[in-house]
Amino acid sequence: MSSKVLIIGAGAIGGFYGALLAKAGADVSVVCRSDYEHVKRNGFAIRSNDLGSWNFVPSQVLKNAADFNGTADYVLLCTKVIPDIDRVTLLRPAVKAETAIVFIQNGVEIEQEVLTAFPDNEVISGLAFICSNRINPGEILHLAYGHLTLGNLPGSISSKTNMLCELFNQSGVVCEATEKIITRRWQKCIWNAPFNSLSVLSGGLETLDILRSQEALVRNIMQEVFNIAEACEHHLPPDIIDININNTYAMPPYKTSMLLDYENGHPMETEVILGNALRAGKRTGVACPHLESVYALMKLRELQLNHSL
Amino acid sequence: MSSKVLIIGAGAIGGFYGALLAKAGADVSVVCRSDYEHVKRNGFAIRSNDLGSWNFVPSQVLKNAADFNGTADYVLLCTKVIPDIDRVTLLRPAVKAETAIVFIQNGVEIEQEVLTAFPDNEVISGLAFICSNRINPGEILHLAYGHLTLGNLPGSISSKTNMLCELFNQSGVVCEATEKIITRRWQKCIWNAPFNSLSVLSGGLETLDILRSQEALVRNIMQEVFNIAEACEHHLPPDIIDININNTYAMPPYKTSMLLDYENGHPMETEVILGNALRAGKRTGVACPHLESVYALMKLRELQLNHSL
Repeated sequence: MSSKVLIIGAGAIGGFYGALLAKAGADVSVVCRSDYEHVKRNGFAIRSNDLGSWNFVPSQVLKNAADFNGTADYVLLCTKVIPDIDRVTLLRPAVKAETAIVFIQNGVEIEQEVLTAFPDNEVISGLAFICSNRINPGEILHLAYGHLTLGNLPGSISSKTNMLCELFNQSGVVCEATEKIITRRWQKCIWNAPFNSLSVLSGGLETLDILRSQEALVRNIMQEVFNIAEACEHHLPPDIIDININNTYAMPPYKTSMLLDYENGHPMETEVILGNALRAGKRTGVACPHLESVYALMKLRELQLNHSL
Repeated sequence: MSSKVLIIGAGAIGGFYGALLAKAGADVSVVCRSDYEHVKRNGFAIRSNDLGSWNFVPSQVLKNAADFNGTADYVLLCTKVIPDIDRVTLLRPAVKAETAIVFIQNGVEIEQEVLTAFPDNEVISGLAFICSNRINPGEILHLAYGHLTLGNLPGSISSKTNMLCELFNQSGVVCEATEKIITRRWQKCIWNAPFNSLSVLSGGLETLDILRSQEALVRNIMQEVFNIAEACEHHLPPDIIDININNTYAMPPYKTSMLLDYENGHPMETEVILGNALRAGKRTGVACPHLESVYALMKLRELQLNHSL
């Protein structure tokens, strides 16, 4: 019997990964708010540079998880993690005893509220490395990457996680299971913290300009995130900063996700990328003045954006 | 015989102080580039909230200091201090042996190039606390304040400085002579460094919003500037940070000069306010990670502004 999957937050990320699971044979339903009418009628049109184009017709298209008919083996939460979105409330109606909760989301230290709300459920934390955009209602353009990393909390790999990895691998993206998903979140934060914040605070620079002009500040922020991760007992490779710097020099100039949100007037994941890292630093007594400065400046930028609404 | 004064950079600051000196009886000429034709024909119209309105007809209106007829007792340099403006080149043609060079300009550590270029001249460093705007060609609106502080370099008060102070005091603004003008520059930088940079990097917040939202960052930057000044042997009052914070809470919300430049697409005094302070910190081995972060971000912001020209 095919796995029953419910995607909550079927936008550029959730819609794309849902479409992949459906392609691999899963029974995939979606909760989508803004594009509900369109998706209900037409499904999703996926255009992927790497994987071709196809239509994804979900099994059920819902406005609310409460309307889901059946029991999900997996609920995939793919929303942004921002103060305005209450993840537990979104998940609650669709989570039964057998349901594994999977979140494919950004940030560090975002696990606890889900673990606390669903103490008896399997919880799988997931990270996506992907560029994809919703370009029209129900139309998703997958530009590049797509790599997923999944792991059970607090640190293991279950058979359900392996099964989900397999489905993704069959569908054409690389999905890897890890016993150290929390460490991986910190590893991703090494890159995300400087580049996301500096791209917004500079008013729109791409990664390469930031690096060429202010590599020292990028490295200082990376080093502070590294030190915080260490203090939280998540040991990152000692050359992780050099690797990130070199890879970013080698990448084409790139607009960060936070910059795209900023340019489109969408809320930014300031709290889960910068705020949570900073709070972990304060809790563990790690000095992080550069991170503190860019976080404070992001809060000022957000304040100014709210003023001008 | 009345003092002969040449103003170089007769904009909102130079035009206003020139008009005051003329009012006090000095023989005041101006070098003004952008408004030359208008000022040549009509002089300046000064509208001051505190001091009333009057016309200021300069003795000579010049495009270049080289055209100045006579010997100036004082040359007042009132331009911004930005990399695009070569102050020595502007001064050179008007400076004779008897001429005292006065600069009424922002920033710290801006003295040396003038001292080096004119080793035999009296050099007077000046600081203005003023809100005034050029609202039309030759039309200057003086909104508030106007207080001047003057002092000879490296640290004394000459009779020429006292005479200039007297002229200003006769004209209606408070002008004070000090033997510690360099210390005063650092004192002003305590306020300027955080509020100018944060107002721009936030995208346009006024002083009160900045302070209410991120007082800790403001204090951290102030403390670093304080420590740098200490290391440079300019001892500021120990309660200077609290005083600045309290005064800013008490002030009406205020747009900084750097924010006004930013909003009008003019070059900003990033280097002389933040860059010079930071370089002094590096030279003296003072840790200044917050100042370093905001300076690096200002450089990124400027890079992005240049890209979008």
